[in-house]
Amino acid sequence: MVRVLRVKPTVLKLGGSVITDKEKKLTPDLQAIERLTKEISRANVSHLVLVHGGGSFGHPIAEQYGIAEGYKDASQIMGFSITHQRMTKLNKLIVGSLINHNIPAVEVQPSSCVVTKAGRIETMEEKPLKKMVEMGFVPVLYGDVVFDSEAGFAILSGDQIVSSLAISLKADRIVMGVDVDGLFTGDPKTDSSARLVRHITLEELKKLEPLIGGSKVTDVTGGMLGKMFELKAAVENGVQTVIVNATEPERVYKALKGEKVVGTVIER
Amino acid sequence: MVRVLRVKPTVLKLGGSVITDKEKKLTPDLQAIERLTKEISRANVSHLVLVHGGGSFGHPIAEQYGIAEGYKDASQIMGFSITHQRMTKLNKLIVGSLINHNIPAVEVQPSSCVVTKAGRIETMEEKPLKKMVEMGFVPVLYGDVVFDSEAGFAILSGDQIVSSLAISLKADRIVMGVDVDGLFTGDPKTDSSARLVRHITLEELKKLEPLIGGSKVTDVTGGMLGKMFELKAAVENGVQTVIVNATEPERVYKALKGEKVVGTVIER
Repeated sequence: MVRVLRVKPTVLKLGGSVITDKEKKLTPDLQAIERLTKEISRANVSHLVLVHGGGSFGHPIAEQYGIAEGYKDASQIMGFSITHQRMTKLNKLIVGSLINHNIPAVEVQPSSCVVTKAGRIETMEEKPLKKMVEMGFVPVLYGDVVFDSEAGFAILSGDQIVSSLAISLKADRIVMGVDVDGLFTGDPKTDSSARLVRHITLEELKKLEPLIGGSKVTDVTGGMLGKMFELKAAVENGVQTVIVNATEPERVYKALKGEKVVGTVIER
Repeated sequence: MVRVLRVKPTVLKLGGSVITDKEKKLTPDLQAIERLTKEISRANVSHLVLVHGGGSFGHPIAEQYGIAEGYKDASQIMGFSITHQRMTKLNKLIVGSLINHNIPAVEVQPSSCVVTKAGRIETMEEKPLKKMVEMGFVPVLYGDVVFDSEAGFAILSGDQIVSSLAISLKADRIVMGVDVDGLFTGDPKTDSSARLVRHITLEELKKLEPLIGGSKVTDVTGGMLGKMFELKAAVENGVQTVIVNATEPERVYKALKGEKVVGTVIER
């Protein structure tokens, strides 16, 4: 009945800042979603898992209720419900766009199948997800509020899901769609000597660490370093990872096809 | 952090024919949803799990693609995705209404945490769900398309979820909200001698079986007999079960409060 998985899956992340307008609450970037859906459709990857971020749907309300700090008092309970509800709304737009383009997308809710411990995935039920991938469905997960065995609840980032799934599904490749061209040695907006790192090994990454960081560059390379940290485990497991600018047309397409593309490749 | 569950939970089922217009595709009964939300809010049950059916959102499309017969060919794949998408749309209306009335509802997708075997629940990840109930959230599940270890995929009825959860959560009570007054000895529309069965034990139920059934009464008592079959395991485990007409105001409220109400009580 279920086909044996001959082709290793690809895990694609679409950052929240790519698919929403981060400045305006609850505002999806429908044009970007439509364009990216078309790129995914054209790339026609045989086994694909999609993970997206929350952007202006998840972050403001989660922050308002202090969800990331875990359960403190009953006033946060409604905040958890509303944050989750908003993430499912954003997910519905992505899944709807994929289905409209004849891609058999199925929402997979992290809060329904993951429990974290101090914010790190403790258990994740992957049986339904693995069957989906085997059968040719495209599971669509997202950064979500989840239940936590220590803190009551926590925020589980899309990046942590990407790395965890890439390892457990024995993925061939991770494509990280973000809103910058890749990893820079500094903030390209303020530092004229900052250059895009086209290729990096884990060893080299460790050496680069002192170059990255500093308060001024938190937005650009600071965020990227956090991603790097999350992806390290997958890269150590042999999953090739490429970071591309998903706000630029064709980059996600090329990365999914394994073509040469502007971005940062991370390898073991 | 997490409170010990002192109070046994109540599992409430809202049938698809109660919350949607079964004659018109994709048509929710928003007035019924709003009224039932208010009844749930007023009843203020301390640990509640809600399960709803699909009605005109799930059934027509699932039938069109033959989802219930399991995976036959690739043409069903999009049908599975679309059926699931529609069920999540209906769920969003229920969860949205609950949140608007300050009830901390959280969607739990059966397809994300259940695998069936020949249509029966084989594994169900309940860790997140149990934490939700402990913390005072109201998980909202539904009849869903799910992955099946034998058939590829299957339809998992809300009734099967109700019975399974009532047992594993050690529920105190099941309230089944349907569109008839309860179990009748025949079809009340065509048989003037048909009477509502107010109270029934499992032993008595077995004796009633020859009275119920026949092709003419499939819609009314035939459906009810199917429900009875699903609920038998929970009743055997000591969960008191009451079937009430959820299209009639106040019946769900009274059943949730444990008050005297028109309906059918099933006990061990």
